[in-house]
Amino acid sequence: MRVLGIDPGLRNMGWGVIAVDGPRLTHIANGVIRSEAGDLGARLVTLYRGLCAVIAAHAPDAAAVEQTFVNKDATGTLKLGQARGIAMLAPAEAGLAVGEYAPNAVKKAVVGVGHAQKGQIEHMVRFQLPGIVLAGPDAADALAIAICHAHHLQGRALRIKVVA
Amino acid sequence: MRVLGIDPGLRNMGWGVIAVDGPRLTHIANGVIRSEAGDLGARLVTLYRGLCAVIAAHAPDAAAVEQTFVNKDATGTLKLGQARGIAMLAPAEAGLAVGEYAPNAVKKAVVGVGHAQKGQIEHMVRFQLPGIVLAGPDAADALAIAICHAHHLQGRALRIKVVA
Repeated sequence: MRVLGIDPGLRNMGWGVIAVDGPRLTHIANGVIRSEAGDLGARLVTLYRGLCAVIAAHAPDAAAVEQTFVNKDATGTLKLGQARGIAMLAPAEAGLAVGEYAPNAVKKAVVGVGHAQKGQIEHMVRFQLPGIVLAGPDAADALAIAICHAHHLQGRALRIKVVA
Repeated sequence: MRVLGIDPGLRNMGWGVIAVDGPRLTHIANGVIRSEAGDLGARLVTLYRGLCAVIAAHAPDAAAVEQTFVNKDATGTLKLGQARGIAMLAPAEAGLAVGEYAPNAVKKAVVGVGHAQKGQIEHMVRFQLPGIVLAGPDAADALAIAICHAHHLQGRALRIKVVA
């Protein structure tokens, strides 16, 4: 099974795809879709088409998006929300169930503690997916979200097995 | 020329299409796309496909979306941002330029003052588009945004004429 993780952002949309085979995780691809210039509509189209292309190229079976909040200012939160809407839409339009995880849940799943630093996440992503070449910190975060979702899906599969 | 106005919301996405012929405005259609049940991805897909269907059915030449802010809480602002991302994406994906107007600018264009109440907007929309049947308050707001954008586009056309 392949899992797509997305770290939503209007300027940089991080993405990462991993293959999950029991406890074994394998890196498939990662990248950052950039949308810096132009009006908002054009930037959202760039992000949407970019994510659709990633889904078409790497055929994930499941997806997850980080559940982010910006408490500082409403303008920043609205911008992030717009990018996050696109991050949720693209996989849902492709027929994928889209999981949502709070940043602390992602950190806890990948690093073991909920208050991990950004550097720690990248370190653990590199440790769990050896030899990986990362497109940037947003791509590392996206892979962490994919790993978190893989753990969640495996936990659920395990519980289903136990019940059956 | 046909102008599409969109009042973004996750639960209720208002839309309205008007025809603009010089100073004359004619109502074409209005409605509200509802997305109340299901997970976030499915709700965003409902809104996106609904807006794409509206654009396919009424073939607007231009579009505008309200520039909203929710200062009260970050959760509400993020939700609205997600819906607003879809409201911007659908017309931009269809190749339309998408205008953005602050609520006060819309009120000023339609009612004449920036601090107009919701009832006043509906009243003036009914006055400017006689005999209209409104799908709800969100559809009235969407038509107000379309009227505001029509004024803006005509003003620009006028200025271009004066210069030429």
